[in-house]
Amino acid sequence: MQHSIHFVTSNANKLRELSNLLQKKLVQIDLDLNEVQTSDLTLLVEDKLRQAWQRVGKPVIVEDTSLYFDAWGELPGPLVKWFVKHLGAKGMYQALLNFDDHHASAVCCLGYSSDGENLHLFKGEVGGEIVAPRGSSNFGWDPIFCPHGARSTFAEMNEGDKGKYSPRGLSARRFRDFLAAEGGQS
Amino acid sequence: MQHSIHFVTSNANKLRELSNLLQKKLVQIDLDLNEVQTSDLTLLVEDKLRQAWQRVGKPVIVEDTSLYFDAWGELPGPLVKWFVKHLGAKGMYQALLNFDDHHASAVCCLGYSSDGENLHLFKGEVGGEIVAPRGSSNFGWDPIFCPHGARSTFAEMNEGDKGKYSPRGLSARRFRDFLAAEGGQS
Repeated sequence: MQHSIHFVTSNANKLRELSNLLQKKLVQIDLDLNEVQTSDLTLLVEDKLRQAWQRVGKPVIVEDTSLYFDAWGELPGPLVKWFVKHLGAKGMYQALLNFDDHHASAVCCLGYSSDGENLHLFKGEVGGEIVAPRGSSNFGWDPIFCPHGARSTFAEMNEGDKGKYSPRGLSARRFRDFLAAEGGQS
Repeated sequence: MQHSIHFVTSNANKLRELSNLLQKKLVQIDLDLNEVQTSDLTLLVEDKLRQAWQRVGKPVIVEDTSLYFDAWGELPGPLVKWFVKHLGAKGMYQALLNFDDHHASAVCCLGYSSDGENLHLFKGEVGGEIVAPRGSSNFGWDPIFCPHGARSTFAEMNEGDKGKYSPRGLSARRFRDFLAAEGGQS
């Protein structure tokens, strides 16, 4: 017996992207989950996953992505959504310009639980550089992140190429392997 | 009958400063309260106050201070503690340098409840400018904030002068007036 998996997101792009990466139909559910102030992505995702399970009571995925500027310690980190909202990609680039080191890393963490007891986390981390905004994208900081080994920002890539490089792509592939090993893949 | 008031803080400087401003002995209590990710200071302080009441069950004060860069919308806002932790005052100044507008405002919000039902908030807001770090201080961003009407940063002021200008001073005086009107002041 296979239950459908709910994915907590308000973002239709994320839903489509993750469904494609997992090659699996997900059920979108838009819940307003509390996010604690922390620079610890693991803690944040575990907390969201517990809340999501309490509300959904069925196999459920939550997701959070952090962006770390090497020159800024653990910032923006999981707080990056506030930087995107208030500064935008261009403003984030501008804020980093006066620092010598423009290296950054992007980390996606998918949290999955099928029973509310066992919390499984799948992380994908990608190093890169913060550059002047290029390309267009629906995702907040995609125009300023150029992953190592690529010449394009995420915002200049098509979805297929982005999936190869993106932290969400990496964590999704780890999650897909886990589901396959569990025999949960159709 | 007068109950002593508990002040939730881990910071002995804040305790001394607020006790002096209120001219009242406060009982320090160090609780690890969750802080939600939000740029809404009111929401954050109300949430902390509810948690504090549940834990203390006696008249209790919580406090949070936000710093807003005009060029950055609602950032750093209540997230400023993470900026202080990871960037420091100098790094915050550096990050703002590439923006034309260096105006900022600092807002302190004291939350007080004597019964767990009625939540009283006292806000103090002060405008100023972000400048290159000057002076020394135990408070995180004091060296880069120069309030309107002053020539010194908070870190260059003695406690008395700072109390006149600081948002914590303003909100504390509002709170003191409230306590006096309630007849709670000795």
